[in-house]
Amino acid sequence: MSLRIAILIFDRLTALDAIGPYEVLSRLPGSEVVFVAKEPGLKRTDTGRLGLNADAAIADVRDPAIVLVPGGEGNRPLMLDDEVLDWLRGAHETSTWTTSVCTGALVLGAAGILDAKRATTHWAYLDRLRELGAEPVGERVVEDGKIITGAGVSAGLDMALTLASRVSGETVAQAIQLGIEYDPKPPFDTGSPDKAPPDLVEFIRSSEG
Amino acid sequence: MSLRIAILIFDRLTALDAIGPYEVLSRLPGSEVVFVAKEPGLKRTDTGRLGLNADAAIADVRDPAIVLVPGGEGNRPLMLDDEVLDWLRGAHETSTWTTSVCTGALVLGAAGILDAKRATTHWAYLDRLRELGAEPVGERVVEDGKIITGAGVSAGLDMALTLASRVSGETVAQAIQLGIEYDPKPPFDTGSPDKAPPDLVEFIRSSEG
Repeated sequence: MSLRIAILIFDRLTALDAIGPYEVLSRLPGSEVVFVAKEPGLKRTDTGRLGLNADAAIADVRDPAIVLVPGGEGNRPLMLDDEVLDWLRGAHETSTWTTSVCTGALVLGAAGILDAKRATTHWAYLDRLRELGAEPVGERVVEDGKIITGAGVSAGLDMALTLASRVSGETVAQAIQLGIEYDPKPPFDTGSPDKAPPDLVEFIRSSEG
Repeated sequence: MSLRIAILIFDRLTALDAIGPYEVLSRLPGSEVVFVAKEPGLKRTDTGRLGLNADAAIADVRDPAIVLVPGGEGNRPLMLDDEVLDWLRGAHETSTWTTSVCTGALVLGAAGILDAKRATTHWAYLDRLRELGAEPVGERVVEDGKIITGAGVSAGLDMALTLASRVSGETVAQAIQLGIEYDPKPPFDTGSPDKAPPDLVEFIRSSEG
């Protein structure tokens, strides 16, 4: 059985937001990942240093089983783009799972998909998520019905493995985790605002936003 | 000061091997990441589902400060490709750091760069690394002089944060870790062959290699 997974990309996206989940979800049995954009073609990341190709237009991928919206400063214009928001609302109506990583949740919020839903985003954007009608939760992976949201950037790996276990069962998800050798050993313990020194938290907060 | 970082890509690479380190290293002060290939242009990943663009030919990027080789089945032909191996040997002569993720180490090994060096790779390929003259080490990140190798796929994040701290100091590396919210919480504890059930280990071993 084919499992169509649409990952929405755009200029100035954060690459790892999309590629972490891609690496997990593309290994699901029957999965058929497609990178989509408003216009197909090469999208440059937020650093300008990498081009990722959108193989299809959103208009041509109307009913994916899973839809994923990554983050990156380039997704703010999408929050005002009726074609993209209409596509997301339509995809969400028929999807099995609607997901985001990092500030991708802001686009889901702008589409009205997170109204009164528990959701997460990059830690520096939790307040903005509330302004968009969601109930922000400072956890790494948040599930509310068929909506699964991941926190900042690297959290897409944990979100996608959680999703993999929902879609294909725990054994498949565990095999994927072993295949990508996801046994993390970060050299520091500064990956969340609760753990990092306050001056680093302020530094990152002021450079985001 | 500009810090040139060349990431070698090729058809049938494993995307996360390259993109995990890219996401960390592109945030280093002064960094200038460039995705290079034997021939510039779009490279499709090992799943066939994603195209990443190589912006430059290796012939045009002769002396990067940091060189990184990712893994993926498509790098096996590079192990027999004199143009690529000569480029790697030349880059290694002048590099500050020479690095790999996953089976990228096999290409470094084929270039003779790992002779009698401690190095790591995806857990299913440690024996092949020994055949190539290296001293394989089953750790997540292995440093030997200016050579830093990471284990399978997702280990590129830990490798790159370790490298970031060597290049720009611990505070910068910690800030990057916070920026990408790398506070991993894998849903399972099956990310290494020591921890996963034996049948999963055999399953992945037989589908790799």
